[in-house]
Amino acid sequence: MKSLPQYPETCYKLLLEGFSGVFGHLIEPTVQKFTWNSHWAVDHGKRTVKLLGDSFEARKNGLEDTLEYEREHGTFNVLKRWTEERLPIYGPGRQFVADIERSAAGLFGIATYGVQLIAYVENEDGLRIWAARRAASQALYPSKLGVTVGGSLPTGETPLQCLIREAQEEASLSEDLVSKSAHAVGILSYVTTSDAKSARDSEAGLIRAEVQYIYDMKVGVDVKPTPFDNEASTISLYSLGEIKKALDDGEFTPANACLILDFFIRHGLVTYESEVNYVQIISRLRRSLGIHTA
Amino acid sequence: MKSLPQYPETCYKLLLEGFSGVFGHLIEPTVQKFTWNSHWAVDHGKRTVKLLGDSFEARKNGLEDTLEYEREHGTFNVLKRWTEERLPIYGPGRQFVADIERSAAGLFGIATYGVQLIAYVENEDGLRIWAARRAASQALYPSKLGVTVGGSLPTGETPLQCLIREAQEEASLSEDLVSKSAHAVGILSYVTTSDAKSARDSEAGLIRAEVQYIYDMKVGVDVKPTPFDNEASTISLYSLGEIKKALDDGEFTPANACLILDFFIRHGLVTYESEVNYVQIISRLRRSLGIHTA
Repeated sequence: MKSLPQYPETCYKLLLEGFSGVFGHLIEPTVQKFTWNSHWAVDHGKRTVKLLGDSFEARKNGLEDTLEYEREHGTFNVLKRWTEERLPIYGPGRQFVADIERSAAGLFGIATYGVQLIAYVENEDGLRIWAARRAASQALYPSKLGVTVGGSLPTGETPLQCLIREAQEEASLSEDLVSKSAHAVGILSYVTTSDAKSARDSEAGLIRAEVQYIYDMKVGVDVKPTPFDNEASTISLYSLGEIKKALDDGEFTPANACLILDFFIRHGLVTYESEVNYVQIISRLRRSLGIHTA
Repeated sequence: MKSLPQYPETCYKLLLEGFSGVFGHLIEPTVQKFTWNSHWAVDHGKRTVKLLGDSFEARKNGLEDTLEYEREHGTFNVLKRWTEERLPIYGPGRQFVADIERSAAGLFGIATYGVQLIAYVENEDGLRIWAARRAASQALYPSKLGVTVGGSLPTGETPLQCLIREAQEEASLSEDLVSKSAHAVGILSYVTTSDAKSARDSEAGLIRAEVQYIYDMKVGVDVKPTPFDNEASTISLYSLGEIKKALDDGEFTPANACLILDFFIRHGLVTYESEVNYVQIISRLRRSLGIHTA
């Protein structure tokens, strides 16, 4: 993750015809590479890119036509990772205004959403956290550590629905257990830029604005999260000392390190007295993204 | 509380000689009323007010000379509420760079700090919260509801030290109980402007940048917070339904309503599924203040 002194001032704003407010941010190289067809109005003076269309279908078609053209022409490396998964774009009052192919989200710098579950045991042995090690086969951050379950929110699911599905798929946790024991504790929201060297994509500097819906789940020692699909290789119970060492050693992915830090803050394990940047850390983990969010 | 579309762009920035960054925000009427003596360098072009002095003592003397002069001349109504209590001003890395008479904090828009304790019972009867009703004699928000304990952080105390003292003074809660059972869960940070009609002061539009250190304390039914000093008239156990009704009825002070809302979010009582402004509320309750904080 790089620092973002320029965001969002130097970016083009993504607008939608008929809506006020900003929906995303495009960096200048992206704006220059796109072939802007009749679905768009680009204003280089105001540094805005407006998607035209007065209905969900019109906007969806506009995005699809545009992205399929650029995919065929090989304009953007990110589109080589085409997924056929759809990500939602929300307007004021959580209005579902469009959706977009997942691999294109970074080109427009729209808000994307994820769910994160931290399952933990707290008993006479202290507090321990179930942390998942990513499979070595993962394109992004292979073999790195994360919280118990994490997933990206597709079109059509609420965070809780997504959490229940992902907890089953990634950690074999039952719907009954998650519905009963997991509880929402807030969000993290932050902005990163893509790194050309990362395995995720090959365009550098794309704006990634993320909202993570966070869930804590205190479990008994009888609950054992176990990998089900191929995302995690192992899920193990770590003592606080082991978690801190893994953080020090850079074992967690950057986003997951933030999730662990936030857990420590929420549980009084990192405090004003122990951390001189306490206030800064808390407010920066919940950055106002400056765009519409769900 | 008013909306703040202009903050901090239209304000003068408070600077300190020898330090980078911003320490507070002064509104233009305040800048015009002050008699800026030799302790200050004011730049109307850059809209900055810089406190001169290369030591804690020099800065403290500069502030004292200036404020005593304005107090004698009756320049500011807020200084009629002179308290002789000192509030800390922190620089980078929590360096203690100056302190200031409490009643003058709003003139400079420095960050001020408070501690807040929410004691609650969670058992077969559900979750209930100990809420304190302010004494009718309080100048600010008489007879309104607040969380269990709330206090302002003076020079020389850490949040936890302040919490332990205030919990004893306001609610008769022992140091032993609070040390053992209260745990830090994060902060709220927000900006308000003063209202000339409020009882707190008589200058309108002053910038109030506040950081609240939040503590949760789950207690058994044997713990009964009881007013000790004269700040609260009663402290009572409210069911969630009663808390929600009190919120609807405007019984809580604005800041305390935010604290309750944050408690509801942290405890999964307000979720994405129940509140369309979930993400906005969470990030706005932890606004980046744009100034140095502790």
